Amino acid sequence: MAVLRTLIGESLRTTRLRQQRTLREVSGAAQVSLGYLSEVERGQKEASSELLASICRALGIRLSDVLRDVSETLSVLEPAPDLVLEPAPVASVHSIRDVVAAA
Amino acid sequence: MAVLRTLIGESLRTTRLRQQRTLREVSGAAQVSLGYLSEVERGQKEASSELLASICRALGIRLSDVLRDVSETLSVLEPAPDLVLEPAPVASVHSIRDVVAAA
Repeated sequence: MAVLRTLIGESLRTTRLRQQRTLREVSGAAQVSLGYLSEVERGQKEASSELLASICRALGIRLSDVLRDVSETLSVLEPAPDLVLEPAPVASVHSIRDVVAAA
Repeated sequence: MAVLRTLIGESLRTTRLRQQRTLREVSGAAQVSLGYLSEVERGQKEASSELLASICRALGIRLSDVLRDVSETLSVLEPAPDLVLEPAPVASVHSIRDVVAAA
């Protein structure tokens, strides 16, 4: 499953690359270590709220915009909370049986 | 400044209270300690991506919906990245002076 920090990391990385800036530049501006920023971008480290805010400032973007984008991506990947699997309509059951029978 | 984890915590707490569920119930369902959930709700602890997903599952809500709500609130509170403060229009300066003079 796609984890929140993976999506946030991807979003930050994409923004940085679009700005044609290096990890070194952005980590310096955000006052975080290069290694840490790299791990956050790859979804390997969970960034604190303060750190996220700092990275966004360094990139000149709004954290709210990052979250909006991430929530949109997540909404596609995430199953509905009360997802109840519907039984397959009879027609499909027949088709599946036909496929199985034909195999 | 409103920090991300504060807004996420408030959102989760509001949802739980609307469902009229106790910390004990939700922490049990989410398999986190009661104290930890309480700290997350009050914005005192940063929840990991996995923990957030687990709390959302326990509440029967989608993390993407929480993030969308949080991003909307944050967008109001958060200054634009390149915000340049505009000088007040002359008319307003006069009105303020009038108010001050009248006081």
